[in-house]
Amino acid sequence: MNDKNDGKSATRYIGGLKNVRATFKHNPKSIRRVLFAQHYHGAAIQEIKSLARLHSVRVQSVPRVTLDRLTTPGEHQGIVVDVSTFELHSEREFEQAFTEWQNPLILALDTVQDPRNLGACLRVADGAGVDAVLLGKNRCAPLTDVVYRTSTGVLDSLFLVQVANLVRTLRWLQDQNCWIVGTDDEAFEPYTSIDYRRPIAMVVGNEGKGLRRLTKEVCDHVVGIPMHGQATSLNVSVATGILLYEVYRQRSSSST
Amino acid sequence: MNDKNDGKSATRYIGGLKNVRATFKHNPKSIRRVLFAQHYHGAAIQEIKSLARLHSVRVQSVPRVTLDRLTTPGEHQGIVVDVSTFELHSEREFEQAFTEWQNPLILALDTVQDPRNLGACLRVADGAGVDAVLLGKNRCAPLTDVVYRTSTGVLDSLFLVQVANLVRTLRWLQDQNCWIVGTDDEAFEPYTSIDYRRPIAMVVGNEGKGLRRLTKEVCDHVVGIPMHGQATSLNVSVATGILLYEVYRQRSSSST
Repeated sequence: MNDKNDGKSATRYIGGLKNVRATFKHNPKSIRRVLFAQHYHGAAIQEIKSLARLHSVRVQSVPRVTLDRLTTPGEHQGIVVDVSTFELHSEREFEQAFTEWQNPLILALDTVQDPRNLGACLRVADGAGVDAVLLGKNRCAPLTDVVYRTSTGVLDSLFLVQVANLVRTLRWLQDQNCWIVGTDDEAFEPYTSIDYRRPIAMVVGNEGKGLRRLTKEVCDHVVGIPMHGQATSLNVSVATGILLYEVYRQRSSSST
Repeated sequence: MNDKNDGKSATRYIGGLKNVRATFKHNPKSIRRVLFAQHYHGAAIQEIKSLARLHSVRVQSVPRVTLDRLTTPGEHQGIVVDVSTFELHSEREFEQAFTEWQNPLILALDTVQDPRNLGACLRVADGAGVDAVLLGKNRCAPLTDVVYRTSTGVLDSLFLVQVANLVRTLRWLQDQNCWIVGTDDEAFEPYTSIDYRRPIAMVVGNEGKGLRRLTKEVCDHVVGIPMHGQATSLNVSVATGILLYEVYRQRSSSST
């Protein structure tokens, strides 16, 4: 585990012979590694190995289940490349940028573990125009191909920050006069009762368990979305959409 | 195709030996049919066939791919029961009920084809407390197990109406002084500019193509959700959540 990720670009995995060949053709410099399923042989593998040698790309043989985890099982054909695409910003870069943003809106994802949900949250964050997304390191789903596809590619343009300790970063934000608003299914305060026309960090938690205790304690407000039917909660990306667009609505209307 | 569905209950499919056995034990009256994969034999099949005889339930042998379509492939073990759970209301029942609702809020799904999206839309409809959901017949995803699971079971409590001709039903609603508000990615009018404190039918369209032309033409307003980033649209269930909760917000606050 490396806690420093200054200027580090994040990785995305592309699987399948055709896709890997296309990546070598159009964007060979983005490739960081080629991964093969162990015990795979044949002409296709030899072809990709030659391309890797040509472009001085490292080749690694891994268990097939590893590839299943990184990309879509049954589609990678035993060949996956690890490419760098979007930037993951360091906490220092985030802190510098934060002071320059006008009335910032930050989305902090505490422990969103389903990659589809993570992707959908990032898509709505992009739509609502947040300034940055904070991802709790080791607590959120890794930024795999599934996340990338579900987010419809917005990862490349979002200001993404992977933070080692989310609570510490939220405290820093608090010191910058930013309000920390957490969301919880059981909160009594409705999300519409807050005045969002000031710097806000909206904190969204786990699909099942909600915010962790330590995260909740650092929040200035913990709000809920009223539920009128039988279900007790909404999907995390739907909830994130409702919350972020309420911030946007308040900020773009002359009054609350 | 049968256009009348007066009082008809909708069906849900439950697959796998253990689940089917449990359904026979706890709720045998709900079972409408037992479906077996062709060419399946063995003790388990014989056991279920005996139970079916005991409860006078029809047994049918179908190709395995049919079962794959109705439930989760790989989990049904070649045995599926077709159970009636929630009520699908007829158009006549809907029209009668509509006149009794106070300031109704209706969600109309034009052509939502992905079952996960359909389930997520129903879950948010339940959360926002809509009075009814209209489903365009033959145009929306069938109400399968995937829909049921994604909606976290709210189908049982929602007032669901499968309409033969959505445009005709929307025109009827218009005659009842209900505003028809459609949503489109390319609409200029932001969704927040409408006064929702009156009877509203919110019409949401296809994941990719949006509303059909004929549906759009019947709308009193076509509104959009502002997009500030790289993505041009939101997931249909996220959009539905933002729209329905804006209606709720306006109705529960003293002013807009």
